[in-house]
Amino acid sequence: MHPPARSPISPKLTGLFLLGQSVNAVLSSIGNVSPRLARFDTPFIFKSGKAIPAFELMYETYGTLNADKSNAVLVCHALNASHHVAGTYNDDPESLGWWDNMVGPGKPLDTNRFFVVGVNNLGGCFGSSGPRHINPATHKPYGADFPVVTVEDWVNAQAQLADHLGIARFAAVMGGSLGAMQALQWAIAYPARVGHALVVASTPKLSAQNIAFNEVARQAIITDPDFHGGHFYEHNVVPARGLRVARMIGHITYLSDDVMAERFGRVLRDGMQFGYGPEFQIESYLRHQGEKFSGYFDANTYLLITKALDYFDPAADYDNSLALAFERAKNVKFLVVSFTTDWRFSPARSREIVTALTANRADVSYAEIDAPHGHDEFLLEDPRYFALVRAYYARIAAEVGA
Amino acid sequence: MHPPARSPISPKLTGLFLLGQSVNAVLSSIGNVSPRLARFDTPFIFKSGKAIPAFELMYETYGTLNADKSNAVLVCHALNASHHVAGTYNDDPESLGWWDNMVGPGKPLDTNRFFVVGVNNLGGCFGSSGPRHINPATHKPYGADFPVVTVEDWVNAQAQLADHLGIARFAAVMGGSLGAMQALQWAIAYPARVGHALVVASTPKLSAQNIAFNEVARQAIITDPDFHGGHFYEHNVVPARGLRVARMIGHITYLSDDVMAERFGRVLRDGMQFGYGPEFQIESYLRHQGEKFSGYFDANTYLLITKALDYFDPAADYDNSLALAFERAKNVKFLVVSFTTDWRFSPARSREIVTALTANRADVSYAEIDAPHGHDEFLLEDPRYFALVRAYYARIAAEVGA
Repeated sequence: MHPPARSPISPKLTGLFLLGQSVNAVLSSIGNVSPRLARFDTPFIFKSGKAIPAFELMYETYGTLNADKSNAVLVCHALNASHHVAGTYNDDPESLGWWDNMVGPGKPLDTNRFFVVGVNNLGGCFGSSGPRHINPATHKPYGADFPVVTVEDWVNAQAQLADHLGIARFAAVMGGSLGAMQALQWAIAYPARVGHALVVASTPKLSAQNIAFNEVARQAIITDPDFHGGHFYEHNVVPARGLRVARMIGHITYLSDDVMAERFGRVLRDGMQFGYGPEFQIESYLRHQGEKFSGYFDANTYLLITKALDYFDPAADYDNSLALAFERAKNVKFLVVSFTTDWRFSPARSREIVTALTANRADVSYAEIDAPHGHDEFLLEDPRYFALVRAYYARIAAEVGA
Repeated sequence: MHPPARSPISPKLTGLFLLGQSVNAVLSSIGNVSPRLARFDTPFIFKSGKAIPAFELMYETYGTLNADKSNAVLVCHALNASHHVAGTYNDDPESLGWWDNMVGPGKPLDTNRFFVVGVNNLGGCFGSSGPRHINPATHKPYGADFPVVTVEDWVNAQAQLADHLGIARFAAVMGGSLGAMQALQWAIAYPARVGHALVVASTPKLSAQNIAFNEVARQAIITDPDFHGGHFYEHNVVPARGLRVARMIGHITYLSDDVMAERFGRVLRDGMQFGYGPEFQIESYLRHQGEKFSGYFDANTYLLITKALDYFDPAADYDNSLALAFERAKNVKFLVVSFTTDWRFSPARSREIVTALTANRADVSYAEIDAPHGHDEFLLEDPRYFALVRAYYARIAAEVGA
């Protein structure tokens, strides 16, 4: 079966570059998919010590789990994505999964060979237990009372989902950015349950500058009068102003300076207006991104996720030695990928991971890909990047007989 | 006369590094100074075509104008500074001028030799005509109706102040960052009235990324409910939330990633709190900076100044050729200085200026200084930077007999 014709660039990129035009109707090669909800009627205890009495995880799967259950791959999402990794809902091309260019029949992560699992993380806003859900103690939405989550918590919850699905061991756990942190954490916390960790555009911990950007975004949300201390649901408002600013800040850090210059430059839409309407194209782009985001993303989830990013620091429990932290993971195999123009999590940060892994004589492949788009590159169909991931999965397929 | 003993670092830097401690009592070597107000009873016509019927400029001077009026130096301020370049008010060390380490008796810009002028720019909030002033048409504060200002407007107003002071020609015009753009504009607009332009940590125009950061800051202010469309004075409020976020964003871009890492790292004040209070030291620092700024700076002025930054593009009127723009300035002499870790206006941007100047065979000296503090370095007492500026002013002094 041939995949239907599609644009060579992902819809995300299309949205980026064809600002103001409608997104091309891109058909997914995997077709329509449906999310499912897994319920766990046992308390979940967070790293903070807080607990919730029960929880739910929204997930999707693509492909078929083979007889010996050796071909499962977990795809972990980053800040604003979800369990909806690939495919469409009801043939709506606008609903295409966030990594559909990577995951599907014949794609680098080939669903003809692998059984792929996507899951909305705990604390998320796309169906898994989170701030919008009812707090059984108050019979109102948790709001800001939902426990602060960590990458460790997410991975522990994902492990329960794996149990639920009968998956004792993943052939691979993969993610980009914050998703890659989850792949690293899987290798540390559950080394016997992970064959390979694919770690793209990541860092072993945030820098002070990374934390600073997150903190400004949080302050924009928290100080929005419509935030109401995180209990805005009861007021039938959302802190849209704060979310818009938070998203705009984020977007600046996702793109390289060069690609921003190339795509937007200093082009004025209608000459100098001497006012505060959108004049430069970059202003329109950022406002559009902020507006869109504030319409669908939950402010409390945004706070939780940025905090999980800030806290992630696996070396902290190992005398600040990343090599010691990875000692438990020495039998996991790694593919680490970075992009030259990523200034959010630069190649130097990925090299820290590689150095710590090789100190444990782990099986690690590392690629530093010369690519223009900055941090966002991990979502884009860069030919060298995709060829590399494709080849790496071919190796995994050979190992597990997929 | 020996200058009194003082800390080797500026109070700004002290504030930066000794967060939470009171600023050291740093005595100025120039002593107490007083601002003065110049009134111009002629209309000022802005680049936008708008006009105000009269205007005032707040300024300070240090040192003595010599008999042939050849030793005057204009110091232009950047985003949040003012006419108060050096000295104190009423012996209060907290009131030390923003470039007191650079300007004073025996300092690199030596007030024993030069007559130094500092001026609050038009549209500012430290005494010169601006949004807080009464609009004669409405008898209310201008607020958002104050005309949008450009670097060209500022320089034209400064030229009127020079006339007022009887200064036909400045021995030098000097500034860092946005202040340096004014020095460049002086050289282009009034080449016969400028001997030397000292252009520190500057750029010939903002990049899309620079504009993006400004736009997020503006959106934070404009969408603050207390902004009231720029007419918040009438409501007896200030858009403090927006100003805080704007300032936090700015501060991230002023510091290098490395110095932020070195000074703040990932240090938690009191361990993991699993909440949204300030936990990492960088968070406390940014909140403190935002809070302080929102207490003294005018939101409309912030909008005006960021817009002036965005619009500055002297090449735009010359077929997008910076070399053509500088043709008029070929008899002005230039010192251009950049700092290696400045990612806001990187050395590459200063090199664009130098290349365009040398294309006109202008007399230009360029120094790219290996220094750790990022964009903020232009305010700090870096020994190589200060020695260079000192030597350059010695040359100017010899030329003008100061």
